[in-house]
Amino acid sequence: MPPTSWTRADLAALDTADELASFRNEFRLPADLIYLDGNSLGPLPAQAAARVAQVVEQQWGEGLIRSWNSAGWIDWPVTLGAKIAQLIGAAPGSTRVADSTSVNLFKLLAGALALRPGRPVILTEAGNFPTDLYIAQGLAALLDRGHRVVQAAPDEITARLDDSVAVLLLTHVNYRTGRLHDMQALTQQAHAAGALVIWDLAHSAGAMPLDLDGCDADFAIGCGYKFLNGGPGAPAFLMVAPRHADSFTPGLTGWFGHAAPFAFEAEFRPAKGADRALVGTPGIIGMAALECGLDVALAADLHEVRAKSLRMSSILMDLVDQLCPGHFGLLTPKDETLRGSQVSLTHDAAYPIMQALIARGVIGDVRQPNILRFGLTPLYLRFTDLWDAAVILADIMHNATWQRPEFQTRQKVI
Amino acid sequence: MPPTSWTRADLAALDTADELASFRNEFRLPADLIYLDGNSLGPLPAQAAARVAQVVEQQWGEGLIRSWNSAGWIDWPVTLGAKIAQLIGAAPGSTRVADSTSVNLFKLLAGALALRPGRPVILTEAGNFPTDLYIAQGLAALLDRGHRVVQAAPDEITARLDDSVAVLLLTHVNYRTGRLHDMQALTQQAHAAGALVIWDLAHSAGAMPLDLDGCDADFAIGCGYKFLNGGPGAPAFLMVAPRHADSFTPGLTGWFGHAAPFAFEAEFRPAKGADRALVGTPGIIGMAALECGLDVALAADLHEVRAKSLRMSSILMDLVDQLCPGHFGLLTPKDETLRGSQVSLTHDAAYPIMQALIARGVIGDVRQPNILRFGLTPLYLRFTDLWDAAVILADIMHNATWQRPEFQTRQKVI
Repeated sequence: MPPTSWTRADLAALDTADELASFRNEFRLPADLIYLDGNSLGPLPAQAAARVAQVVEQQWGEGLIRSWNSAGWIDWPVTLGAKIAQLIGAAPGSTRVADSTSVNLFKLLAGALALRPGRPVILTEAGNFPTDLYIAQGLAALLDRGHRVVQAAPDEITARLDDSVAVLLLTHVNYRTGRLHDMQALTQQAHAAGALVIWDLAHSAGAMPLDLDGCDADFAIGCGYKFLNGGPGAPAFLMVAPRHADSFTPGLTGWFGHAAPFAFEAEFRPAKGADRALVGTPGIIGMAALECGLDVALAADLHEVRAKSLRMSSILMDLVDQLCPGHFGLLTPKDETLRGSQVSLTHDAAYPIMQALIARGVIGDVRQPNILRFGLTPLYLRFTDLWDAAVILADIMHNATWQRPEFQTRQKVI
Repeated sequence: MPPTSWTRADLAALDTADELASFRNEFRLPADLIYLDGNSLGPLPAQAAARVAQVVEQQWGEGLIRSWNSAGWIDWPVTLGAKIAQLIGAAPGSTRVADSTSVNLFKLLAGALALRPGRPVILTEAGNFPTDLYIAQGLAALLDRGHRVVQAAPDEITARLDDSVAVLLLTHVNYRTGRLHDMQALTQQAHAAGALVIWDLAHSAGAMPLDLDGCDADFAIGCGYKFLNGGPGAPAFLMVAPRHADSFTPGLTGWFGHAAPFAFEAEFRPAKGADRALVGTPGIIGMAALECGLDVALAADLHEVRAKSLRMSSILMDLVDQLCPGHFGLLTPKDETLRGSQVSLTHDAAYPIMQALIARGVIGDVRQPNILRFGLTPLYLRFTDLWDAAVILADIMHNATWQRPEFQTRQKVI
């Protein structure tokens, strides 16, 4: 049972006992900053700068074109994909690093729809991350064969699964609310209705143990730059279950997806397995940074990460109640089985409040119209960080600091 | 008139007089290497390592999520695109850096086909770079509305332009032969037939002055890692002529192409202009390297680059005749108006000959089945490099070095 009122000493004691504490050394974090935005852009892994420099100066600078073979660049979509497969519990050989999350979704959704002809519905969650909605809408419009994107409230998804549904497209953890779907149950329900499932793991890969293979998931996509700490705009990933890999046709067929890319044949022949979902030449420098993030995550026990994340999100909710009573609404479920790795608060002045927090060295972000998001990232956050952040938040609220004019100005993105 | 027989001193004199000679200092080239493969992967710009380190260590490491605004990351697809627009003579505001060349082609081709309903043909060159063919084939199959990809020999393209053609899709310089198309004439002929034109500038952007806008080109795509020296798998670019930008719908509609990406709306609304062809979160680290390559190209006079390139390719052809008479066929046109920035020789033992060259420090590459490719890149190549390379090639041929067993083993890609 948590204390009815936390003290900083309580949280310092949790830090002392924290078996993940040493992972903080695996990142380069600015001093005097509490970073609660690793669900938007993870921080710099300690090895990444040297690794990127090696790839740039030695592999590119000295090796030049030879490095496609000698440094193994040509295999990186596969070898980094294999590391991600371990992190998400996907079948060996099922996962590739490529392109952006959006482009990967396009490929897998196009392939999945073709496997379910005659079913017009792409079922997704109302409030899913917009790019997933846009990709599905754009593909439906492009195909012009009567597909439609149906958005259902999270609790209504199961009821909406019927024989009109070709694909259930869900983000495992909602980016706004932090609500977590039951991957096992929903995948099973979708299959029972004859539908395929695409899981977007943007907010869960690296944040918790996943078992894509055990859940019998058909397809997955995800992001390299959030909980995988792969760097700004890092290459994304895709997973194609082995049972679909050789029957699946991505709409986007480029030379890296060809059975023999360097035979330069005039007709496309798909590669075996998930390789067929590769398209263009992979971005090597971005992959070098991503691999450092993956290696840190692979060194951790994701069950421990998940346990610490839930403890942290619970404590942060407690602290907001304790130190800022009555100021905020709570969007994130209190039920741990429904909670991802973030805490989302609501307030009509979310934007200027977050600007005031950032000015005080506490970085979270805002989502429209009124959500303050705080990502909980156990590999580098300390329990005392939560205390210190909550104290600053309370100070801002009690002194109405956020009403100052300098915190009202909007930027393009935060 | 060239001398009937070149000497090394002749070429040293050309180097002394070369107004582009100092640009070699803008690159980090390994000692004792003659790099004739800049048409496959350009070398490391002198500023790139420091620039990438700054982006990784400071902008990512220190700035974290704030750098999307404070370092201007959010605008890089536009600002780097503006630099490329200058290099290719495209209209201001028409060009964006994004994704891979293949993915960009998909977007533009999907958009172009929708602008020419009822026309089933995507006309392209037989022997175009395979990924362009594969993307067109894959899109036609995905749409399943009777589109077909017609491949015509270079001299037959004009005759094949009729009212069945929706889009003429051409790579400006053929990757195998180095043959250059007449962009002005073909664009005009395509328009006269009611077709739209997509130019793939993979082998011409950065290699010669281009005038996309003056040619009235509709769309273009291109590669960042060849003559633009942007690094392995560098982000690619796309150009949408302003007259099409607001009527054009890319098949791939992601959040960066939305009119208000950070409003997180549930329905896609395309951004104004070429922004709508953006899709996912841009890869920032790769763009940092690319910008260094662009800045070098912008500092050069591309008319001088073109003049030196043609002189170099002519001289290399002369030297092969002079030093290796009767050994090789020539694929690249002798007519300068038909020549890109490479020399392609043919020989049944192309692969082991190239391996022997590489072992001696002369790097070109091989394309199936029998082509040795040598890229001519005036910003860092010296005329004496051509002499030295040709002398080594002659030595390999005269002594049959290439018949040694170690040069027979194939690698995945060269």
